[in-house]
Amino acid sequence: MHKNFVLSTTDRHSKARRGQLTTAHGVIDTPAFMPIGTQGTVKAVTPRELRELDAQIILGNTYHLFVRPGLDVIKHFGGLHNFMNWDGPILTDSGGYQIFSLAKLRKITDGGVEFQNHIDGARAFISPEIAMEIQAALGGDIAMALDECVPYPCEYDYAAQSAELTTRWAKRCLEWKRRNGETAKRGLADSPDRGFADSMLFGIVQGATFEDLRKQSAQAIVDLDFDGYAIGGVSVGEPEEEMMRAVESAEPFLPRDKPRYAMGLGTPPQLLEMIARGMDMFDCVLPTRLARNGTAFTTTGTLNLKNAQFALDKSPIEENCACDACREFSRGYIRHLIKAEEILGLRLITLHNLHSYLNLMKRARTEIESSTFDQFRKAFVAGYKTRDPMMVE
Amino acid sequence: MHKNFVLSTTDRHSKARRGQLTTAHGVIDTPAFMPIGTQGTVKAVTPRELRELDAQIILGNTYHLFVRPGLDVIKHFGGLHNFMNWDGPILTDSGGYQIFSLAKLRKITDGGVEFQNHIDGARAFISPEIAMEIQAALGGDIAMALDECVPYPCEYDYAAQSAELTTRWAKRCLEWKRRNGETAKRGLADSPDRGFADSMLFGIVQGATFEDLRKQSAQAIVDLDFDGYAIGGVSVGEPEEEMMRAVESAEPFLPRDKPRYAMGLGTPPQLLEMIARGMDMFDCVLPTRLARNGTAFTTTGTLNLKNAQFALDKSPIEENCACDACREFSRGYIRHLIKAEEILGLRLITLHNLHSYLNLMKRARTEIESSTFDQFRKAFVAGYKTRDPMMVE
Repeated sequence: MHKNFVLSTTDRHSKARRGQLTTAHGVIDTPAFMPIGTQGTVKAVTPRELRELDAQIILGNTYHLFVRPGLDVIKHFGGLHNFMNWDGPILTDSGGYQIFSLAKLRKITDGGVEFQNHIDGARAFISPEIAMEIQAALGGDIAMALDECVPYPCEYDYAAQSAELTTRWAKRCLEWKRRNGETAKRGLADSPDRGFADSMLFGIVQGATFEDLRKQSAQAIVDLDFDGYAIGGVSVGEPEEEMMRAVESAEPFLPRDKPRYAMGLGTPPQLLEMIARGMDMFDCVLPTRLARNGTAFTTTGTLNLKNAQFALDKSPIEENCACDACREFSRGYIRHLIKAEEILGLRLITLHNLHSYLNLMKRARTEIESSTFDQFRKAFVAGYKTRDPMMVE
Repeated sequence: MHKNFVLSTTDRHSKARRGQLTTAHGVIDTPAFMPIGTQGTVKAVTPRELRELDAQIILGNTYHLFVRPGLDVIKHFGGLHNFMNWDGPILTDSGGYQIFSLAKLRKITDGGVEFQNHIDGARAFISPEIAMEIQAALGGDIAMALDECVPYPCEYDYAAQSAELTTRWAKRCLEWKRRNGETAKRGLADSPDRGFADSMLFGIVQGATFEDLRKQSAQAIVDLDFDGYAIGGVSVGEPEEEMMRAVESAEPFLPRDKPRYAMGLGTPPQLLEMIARGMDMFDCVLPTRLARNGTAFTTTGTLNLKNAQFALDKSPIEENCACDACREFSRGYIRHLIKAEEILGLRLITLHNLHSYLNLMKRARTEIESSTFDQFRKAFVAGYKTRDPMMVE
């Protein structure tokens, strides 16, 4: 089997890694940030703009797409790539996280999760096998095993049992893909690829905030042999130190030659800290969600562009930023748009924020290549002024 | 004085005219459609997208910009062009229409209008002179005289008095520009132009639905000698025949060598009917407003993309349409976006609708040049299926 993940440089002063992950729809340079396309679109952004931003992979939310427009529609269009007209790599999550955070009346058994969706309250059931079947139909390049994501705080006993359930589910996901990968349609009806067998499948490490559970979960998931490994159950409301510790507890047990994905985080400093701890891939709603509220990310912290102080400000969101919003518009104009609830305002901040996150990853890759990543990280974190707890949720 | 409006072709079978209007920020081919940039942005669209759509002029709403962000802000940024980063021609309305349709507690006297704005209820007063001063500060290429736009239906006596008031106000607007045009800053602080004197000023014909009042108003306004003439008080809820008659009653009294602007309309067939009646310029919220509700314009009528019938439709909004939305996305996908309330959905329909309107004007210009406009108009109107009264409001 060909190797789809190649590490080119490993930092000497930290665990930071520079790699390339090859998928059926293109190569992803790691460390990589994945903009989130919840409902078949990265909010307010076109696929063309994503390409101009140099986004190399986006994330699709299985739960949302399953609820609306539904699998039949996406199958009819030949998979998510065709449906949304994005020809780059896509990672689909398992739907688990949203079932646990959005859906109602959940009932978890070893078999799977029964729930009512948050849109029309219709009952549905997702098992590890069904999560695979749905992701095969969506046709992403990377699928995620179904896991249970426990809340913070969580009792030790529940966290232990839940991590074991996640392991049993992970095994069933792998099993389903081994049996059905070649035959399951991968969406792209007109593509010559080998169906879902061409997709990668990542396992997810759980274990809440408990060091021994994180270690056990990592070992058990790694034993099953996935194409990559994710750290789940982080960025669920725990303090930042707990988040770092959870990753540090699991990381030593992850194989060097597989990509590692820290799920659902975080702020720019957190991403650099995670890279320093050996993580390669990230996804986070912050750049797009906060943009819609008027908040812009800069290398020295966030700006709330609704503030009156920006009303007469002729400078761009961030000096020397190469994004279209900064090259063409002032803070004062964007503030006016946000105050007047004009869509263009959130469009411009969204573009800037995505550029900011993607550019930070580009910078991190260069710094790792030059063996200067650790100095860069320290200087960046020290210079980042925002310490708003809202920022880490 | 140089001539800024040149008619190149006049249709032999109708009153349609093909012309060019030269402004300080560029040339406008007429018949022309002007997308509406209510609050300093054409809703959901960037200036770059407007240029790609070949929009040659946009409209800015004086009332909205006066209320928010306010004149001080726009002056600080050197005028509306600089503020919103649009370097093409801008027409600013007088603010009158919005004062009469949006503001509260209006009190009209010969001096002007006192009102409370609809955002924070602050009291303000606008006279013909103040309307000029504000438009000079906005720095548009075409300013409009302050008028009173009477509602439909309207009593004859009130319509007559109101049209006379509009004439008196029109005279004061001209007077103000003659006295202050050279000194009034035209926004663009760094521009070598001659201030507001470089802007054109259009007068507005009123007279409600009364043929004799329309004639009298047209004659009185034309006597004052403006750079162009608008027909106001149409598309205010009257039946389509009344709208046509109002324009037909005024048009014979407008000079051939000046541009004519039919304000605030309409559907695609209405625009062609207005062109056939000698009108050159149009503005309308329909393409952008209806887009936000999921309604797309095609050459054969409107489509409500929320309808279930489009869920599995792989065709574009309109076959052979050259807009980005039609070249890249399906009706089914756009329907999903609209149902899921994703901003990308209304962005795509807005682009398509603006393209549709602008392209219709381009087509009309070509047809006039080929002396085939009248056949084209008849065929288009006959083939246009939508007869929804909502469409003409």
